[in-house]
Amino acid sequence: MSFAKLDDHCRALGALDHALSILGTDEAVNMAPGGGEARAEAMATLSGMYHRQATDPRVREWIETAARSEDLAPEQVIAVSELERSYINMTCLPSDFVESKMRTSMRSEQLWRKARPTGDWAAFQPALEGVVTLMREEAAMRAEVLGLEPYDALMEQYDPGNRTASITPVFAELKAFLVEFLPRALAVQEARLSTRPLKPLSGDYPVERQKALGLEMMTAVGFDMNHGSLSVSDHPFCGGVPSDVRMTTRYRIDEFLPALMGILHETGHGLYEQNLPKDWSHWPSGKARGMSLHESQSLFVEKQIGRNPAFWRFALPLVDQFLNESWTMEDLLPHVHQVKRGKIRVDADEVTYPLHVILRYELEQDLLSGRLEVKDLPEAWDAKMQASLGISTLDDPKNGPMQDVHWPSGAFGYFPSYTLGAVMAAQQWAAILKLNPDVDAQISVGDFEMVNAWRRDNIWSRASTGSTPEILRDATGEDLNPARFIAHLQARYGQ
Amino acid sequence: MSFAKLDDHCRALGALDHALSILGTDEAVNMAPGGGEARAEAMATLSGMYHRQATDPRVREWIETAARSEDLAPEQVIAVSELERSYINMTCLPSDFVESKMRTSMRSEQLWRKARPTGDWAAFQPALEGVVTLMREEAAMRAEVLGLEPYDALMEQYDPGNRTASITPVFAELKAFLVEFLPRALAVQEARLSTRPLKPLSGDYPVERQKALGLEMMTAVGFDMNHGSLSVSDHPFCGGVPSDVRMTTRYRIDEFLPALMGILHETGHGLYEQNLPKDWSHWPSGKARGMSLHESQSLFVEKQIGRNPAFWRFALPLVDQFLNESWTMEDLLPHVHQVKRGKIRVDADEVTYPLHVILRYELEQDLLSGRLEVKDLPEAWDAKMQASLGISTLDDPKNGPMQDVHWPSGAFGYFPSYTLGAVMAAQQWAAILKLNPDVDAQISVGDFEMVNAWRRDNIWSRASTGSTPEILRDATGEDLNPARFIAHLQARYGQ
Repeated sequence: MSFAKLDDHCRALGALDHALSILGTDEAVNMAPGGGEARAEAMATLSGMYHRQATDPRVREWIETAARSEDLAPEQVIAVSELERSYINMTCLPSDFVESKMRTSMRSEQLWRKARPTGDWAAFQPALEGVVTLMREEAAMRAEVLGLEPYDALMEQYDPGNRTASITPVFAELKAFLVEFLPRALAVQEARLSTRPLKPLSGDYPVERQKALGLEMMTAVGFDMNHGSLSVSDHPFCGGVPSDVRMTTRYRIDEFLPALMGILHETGHGLYEQNLPKDWSHWPSGKARGMSLHESQSLFVEKQIGRNPAFWRFALPLVDQFLNESWTMEDLLPHVHQVKRGKIRVDADEVTYPLHVILRYELEQDLLSGRLEVKDLPEAWDAKMQASLGISTLDDPKNGPMQDVHWPSGAFGYFPSYTLGAVMAAQQWAAILKLNPDVDAQISVGDFEMVNAWRRDNIWSRASTGSTPEILRDATGEDLNPARFIAHLQARYGQ
Repeated sequence: MSFAKLDDHCRALGALDHALSILGTDEAVNMAPGGGEARAEAMATLSGMYHRQATDPRVREWIETAARSEDLAPEQVIAVSELERSYINMTCLPSDFVESKMRTSMRSEQLWRKARPTGDWAAFQPALEGVVTLMREEAAMRAEVLGLEPYDALMEQYDPGNRTASITPVFAELKAFLVEFLPRALAVQEARLSTRPLKPLSGDYPVERQKALGLEMMTAVGFDMNHGSLSVSDHPFCGGVPSDVRMTTRYRIDEFLPALMGILHETGHGLYEQNLPKDWSHWPSGKARGMSLHESQSLFVEKQIGRNPAFWRFALPLVDQFLNESWTMEDLLPHVHQVKRGKIRVDADEVTYPLHVILRYELEQDLLSGRLEVKDLPEAWDAKMQASLGISTLDDPKNGPMQDVHWPSGAFGYFPSYTLGAVMAAQQWAAILKLNPDVDAQISVGDFEMVNAWRRDNIWSRASTGSTPEILRDATGEDLNPARFIAHLQARYGQ
């Protein structure tokens, strides 16, 4: 009886979630320019409705009754306990704090949008200070309720089970490797380019042809066009709902790789969503596990598959066919594998990206613990950039600590997901390779069946029936481990 | 205080309504083929949420308190009383009856979809009997609560204030005129075609060019592209929300008139929605008044403007420009003004359409009162078709009483809206012509400012601040009156 009530409860939340997802996608893809105000008002009201229903005190009673007294099947036990986890995460902050945080972070994000283009740190600093003060309080409150360290309590929202105790040594090892490896990879690249200079892949590629190529690739790697679509938006994303995944990209007429690699990345997210278990789609246990596993799926398709030379043996003829070009592997791979030091995280490549993330991971912990104050952030940022990437950002805060939306909008504990995703994608690839040493041969003829079957069994169908580390361990037989990712980078960029 | 509570209440309903409107549009335009099941589930849950919140017993208390004790501004008084009307209409049926009606009409509509293509009346009859039985009960219950005649109580949902007492004589006069007029109009047409045969307007018109032409026309007649858009769907409609009106059409490659006239029709609906008062958009008093006034707006643009020869002096050069044709007015107008007897309402022209509607208006009253039983409907339908249009449908139920979705889905009292819309559009045109005898000259140069200003002041901005007859009377200075429509038909088709 309580379980049935919880099922109705989840169904109501599922419907609101469905509406919010589609409204969000619609806003980015189809909304008329003047429709924004009413849309924002409607979405805020629906979000409020969602939050009120999700945190209804009766839910706690139903959970307790169901967990205590009923004869539940194992799947139901997991579903109730995952719902409880989500309920606790949502109710552990007093509602006046939630409101005050929302106001502060909205103002700070608006201020960031205004101050960033000119890199006006002085204007931005007080706003970020306000957010950091609140985040310290929030981390303390979450830590208290969850019995976790403050930073772990923040990460728990994005990746249940992820802890600094296991991540910090992994990131330390990875950073030590990369700081030493990056100059070597750059030297290898330079030597290669000195014998064969980079050939531009530019031309005139109509959007329709690029889209047709993108759809061909999406379908090839397993995206089900019966349950999804590809549109255009200013910022590529993967939205919608599992039964109707809305992917977007943006096109440049003179280049095809940015859109295509973006499509492959979002396809990775889309495959995860499309292959979640349908029967539990309205329960938290039926949803994708978290940010780092999600990112492991997008990076798996973009990097492990999409930047694998074997993949390009299959893909290059299609690119030639759709775009009327005739490139060789030697023309193309140097673009796909280009390494470059830079200030900007979102423009970074596979080798340098983790250094950007680890820098933020370290600094946000310092900011939260009080070891670092916001006023000292530009210097601290610069010091770490110099040490890891050999670049200074001190006179360029716009491309230093002002480049990301995460902190001004109050998202602390989110950054590690990106690199955890890369590390876990490499572990998944290694696990597949162990079972199936012929995977490159399969991919080179466009056969993704075995790769997808493994991911369906080990990642997608698991949804949220375990913590992030549990799912990783069950899937790969090992805990979070940088060795696979390091080996992957060495193989691809070290020779 | 109670007013503030009602404002919050309307805002919550407004957000759900916004979501349902956009989800509905998205389903028709953007949804992946396999997304239907989850979408139906989400929309049913959100509709249930809407209904539960809309009929919350506390709303009655807030309305009573607000109406009784507070110092309300005149606009607030109207808003509360319109909310009360809507609340009563929504709560006057017991919820078990609502559920049983929903089940019966859903089953009956499904059966209709299956039986219609082969015209299997025997299979369909019992389903329609079930619906009619329930509709008799529903009409009686609504009549009891509202103190109205049963059929009036049903119409009240679609057009507040519309009563058979005023509609029946208007329809009787119109029918008497049309039965006599139709043969005359056909003879006039035949005489014209015998001296100058119909020139086909067919060719090869790419969808993009037809769409560009449609957008040009929409904008010309006043549609604000900042608050709306035009897409493609199987069945054209005007959906979305006032701040973002989603119009759709469908294109044929070989003909341009069907899509263009469809666009003009939906633009009429869109103009009404876009020009409703923004401050009250979440209250019932801020929404469009009802089906017949809405139809008067679409028919105003499609028929009063879009089939007016003056309009084509402006439009024809644009058509030529966008489609690379060079037609004369004499080539085009016979298509725009074609009259033809037919069995199918949705294919009917301006002259024959009202005869289809009046037939249904008469028959659905007979069905509800028990003067007619469903088993005798095919004969009754046939007799009326023979009398008014001189066509028999006895051996063709698919194109007789099985052609419309309205009855099998439980929509009784809706049909009159179509022809009331045509009658009221003619009255509005006459009112404008009286103030502004130069309207044809303005339209012939693409100047719709005066026409739209009058409609904005007299129809659109009124929203639901009066009943349908009140708004009509305030706008045109007269009650529902068939004379203007009759004069319009005589002028356009009688000579």
